[in-house]
Amino acid sequence: MIDKELQVYGIRPVLELIESGKEIDTIYLQKDIKAEWINTIRLKEKEYKLNIKHVPKYKLNSITRKNHQGVIAICSNIIFQNFENLLISSFQKGEFPFFLLLDRITDVRNFGSICRSAECMGVHGIIIPKKNSAQINSVAIKASSGAITNINICRENNLEKVIKYAKTSGLKIVACSEKSQNSIFNTILNCPILIIIGSEKDGISQKLLSLSDEFISIPISGKTDSLNASVATGIILYEKNRQSS
Amino acid sequence: MIDKELQVYGIRPVLELIESGKEIDTIYLQKDIKAEWINTIRLKEKEYKLNIKHVPKYKLNSITRKNHQGVIAICSNIIFQNFENLLISSFQKGEFPFFLLLDRITDVRNFGSICRSAECMGVHGIIIPKKNSAQINSVAIKASSGAITNINICRENNLEKVIKYAKTSGLKIVACSEKSQNSIFNTILNCPILIIIGSEKDGISQKLLSLSDEFISIPISGKTDSLNASVATGIILYEKNRQSS
Repeated sequence: MIDKELQVYGIRPVLELIESGKEIDTIYLQKDIKAEWINTIRLKEKEYKLNIKHVPKYKLNSITRKNHQGVIAICSNIIFQNFENLLISSFQKGEFPFFLLLDRITDVRNFGSICRSAECMGVHGIIIPKKNSAQINSVAIKASSGAITNINICRENNLEKVIKYAKTSGLKIVACSEKSQNSIFNTILNCPILIIIGSEKDGISQKLLSLSDEFISIPISGKTDSLNASVATGIILYEKNRQSS
Repeated sequence: MIDKELQVYGIRPVLELIESGKEIDTIYLQKDIKAEWINTIRLKEKEYKLNIKHVPKYKLNSITRKNHQGVIAICSNIIFQNFENLLISSFQKGEFPFFLLLDRITDVRNFGSICRSAECMGVHGIIIPKKNSAQINSVAIKASSGAITNINICRENNLEKVIKYAKTSGLKIVACSEKSQNSIFNTILNCPILIIIGSEKDGISQKLLSLSDEFISIPISGKTDSLNASVATGIILYEKNRQSS
């Protein structure tokens, strides 16, 4: 959930914000400044997937009247949820737990669109890794049609631990991969479930695959290798709900 | 299908190309030129949804060594198909005709993603209107993962005429709208079919709705109004194939 947009200005506060790993939407850097700390931020640009915009001083002045020292970061104050709490809460509601784990989905539009589908389809929570996941920035929020503000997101350090906990709690772990020979047509999804979706680039990592109970694919023909990740996710969530209807 | 990238350079050829309504990927304009024809192109920018990039002269020189006069258009040489021919061909193959009509889908990424799903799902052809449809440019091709080069696209002046022809040929016309009370769970899609998807903004136009045989929606819950257009399309194509399997 998002409280409100948050501005952080000044060199030291922005550097600390980056180091904290908090979700940063945009960093505005004053165009004509030459200083050592500019290089420090640039060095972190790739590691933290920062969205840096180089703008004239008047643009920074229009954002804040305070002493920004040539740098302002805009971040969304997202409150992440705890997976174990969400799981308990879904049981308490008398519903089959319905979770989605995104293994390194890095495209912000795909991420936003997946959040939109998940919110529409009654998913109890989306689990993402702390590193190697799409920035939850304004592009993602727009692509989600605002759904990111209404869906529970859990950001976890250790995805294997999450899966093991889900298994112990009676959830079926279903891994979706176009390489699987097992069609989704023949798979029972109407049960407590955690569905794993793999990265756009190389699917689900081996260590998460090895923890899965079932491997499914959506039957496709034609010359194209695979469906778009957010479309495939939408189809799987749909099929789960169809079976439960 | 796309043959190869096509360059058009020089003021008059580019202006004629724009007027022709042909798919233009990008127009490169020399940054520092001040001339009357620049305004002429700018005036057409909105009407024809042109993607104009203002670049220095050396960029234009790197594209062509010929006398470009400060303007180069890059267009994809797309060959559109004829709907009636595709329909006959699907019957000849002994398959149930399976067509998709996009009523003013204007987002290029949605369009690309829909082409990708359609190619994966065995759609015989996608029908789009000549006006008010997404540009088939490099962004669309990338979003389609190249599928645009393998899916049949029909660009038609008169969508009502297409639907009437499809109806006469025995196709069921199914309109997808979140406003429909009729769930896709209860709809038979395993038949000769033309599925209409409406625009991201205001759905399917009234005149196309009035020609439809059935109105369906994908059941959703939650606070978000609707699914993303390309996700919804993927789900409907999936459900059609599931029923046919």
